[in-house]
Amino acid sequence: MGLQRQSHGPSVQQAVEEAVFAFCGEEVRMQSAGRTDAGVHAYAMRTHIDLEKEWPVFKVSEALNAHLRPNPIAVTHCEIVPDDWHARFSCIGRSYIYRICNRRAPLTVERDRAWQLPQPLDADAMHDAAQVFTGEHDFTTFRSVNCQAKSPIKTLDRLDVYRGQGKEHEWVFVEAEARSFLHHQVRSMVGCLAYVGMGRWSKQRVEQALAAKDRQALGLNAPPHGLYFVSAKYSDQE
Amino acid sequence: MGLQRQSHGPSVQQAVEEAVFAFCGEEVRMQSAGRTDAGVHAYAMRTHIDLEKEWPVFKVSEALNAHLRPNPIAVTHCEIVPDDWHARFSCIGRSYIYRICNRRAPLTVERDRAWQLPQPLDADAMHDAAQVFTGEHDFTTFRSVNCQAKSPIKTLDRLDVYRGQGKEHEWVFVEAEARSFLHHQVRSMVGCLAYVGMGRWSKQRVEQALAAKDRQALGLNAPPHGLYFVSAKYSDQE
Repeated sequence: MGLQRQSHGPSVQQAVEEAVFAFCGEEVRMQSAGRTDAGVHAYAMRTHIDLEKEWPVFKVSEALNAHLRPNPIAVTHCEIVPDDWHARFSCIGRSYIYRICNRRAPLTVERDRAWQLPQPLDADAMHDAAQVFTGEHDFTTFRSVNCQAKSPIKTLDRLDVYRGQGKEHEWVFVEAEARSFLHHQVRSMVGCLAYVGMGRWSKQRVEQALAAKDRQALGLNAPPHGLYFVSAKYSDQE
Repeated sequence: MGLQRQSHGPSVQQAVEEAVFAFCGEEVRMQSAGRTDAGVHAYAMRTHIDLEKEWPVFKVSEALNAHLRPNPIAVTHCEIVPDDWHARFSCIGRSYIYRICNRRAPLTVERDRAWQLPQPLDADAMHDAAQVFTGEHDFTTFRSVNCQAKSPIKTLDRLDVYRGQGKEHEWVFVEAEARSFLHHQVRSMVGCLAYVGMGRWSKQRVEQALAAKDRQALGLNAPPHGLYFVSAKYSDQE
């Protein structure tokens, strides 16, 4: 399910807000460091809610987890923050990982948890092409038509592509870090890098797609189920 | 689903045999290096089937994977073996990993893929107690009442318990290697080691349970969904 409240189907936000209401009767609006679309996973999303009454944090996390069952959602950590701390607006860094299983055989244990690509991928070529995206750019090509950000200009701090070692040799991982991302930005970059990995696109073609500032220049938008929100960074952390 | 054909519910064996029949019309009996109960996962089970007609191996794996959909089963590798090679009887080593998620919060992405234990586990104490099991022993205590092996005596080559590093610090892993295992042996050993990790059982208590040679002396049988069959070893491999 997606993170944000939506008119169709369940969302993480709605489930948490309903769990809060079931726990203490307060109607809250959950605020999050990032949004994840339906199918996208989150290892550790940071969110906040404002409660009238001050509860022990252990009681809040235990009660919410009890009320969240059987949803695949869990509160892994809970703490009281200053009133001016905002999960979304205080966040100064987000990181994602995109998991590609590079083999012919369909996924079993990892079904719906990764993108399976049967063509052999050149992870080194993908990493080299990924460097086209780092730094400040107009990411219009790599932005959903539904993106609500005011500006298409973002600064990408890191985009690393590597093949897993040892038992993970069938896997290709893409790690992305930025202060913030546009809607579908990681998936759109990964889709084009997959084309590079297959040998269908050159690094120059990626540069052209970025320079085009046109969604029509996008090669491929990678599916949501390979994408994981990994962490949110705040100024009070190292 | 379990690996072996069973009177109730689907099995991996049945699904593969039906895929073979759909592919080439031959009725085969799949033989496997190990069996996995319902809920247990297999990263890489080794099996064999005897076909009358000799097909290109690529065609066999592609056809079986096509017919296996939408089951969470896939052929990851396929090769022609000598007639006297038997997936079960030629196998000289099996390895398993058991995955414990050691945290209070319920599982989300990893639901049904690990055992969640909220009490803090002492992985070092578990590893120390695990050494009670290595070597040759009568494992009657750690054997399902339904176990069909003729003898309860097995030699356990390795049983390592360790806590994950870095991002995996919430995880405790148990790795087991032996020529062969009794039915439920890994899960039964893991269950008792979990008691050690919680401080409920001492290493001496584990020794007593093993010496008792009595299923009633078992502390706890760990649930199936934390267990993964990792690999089968054959004499033609290093």
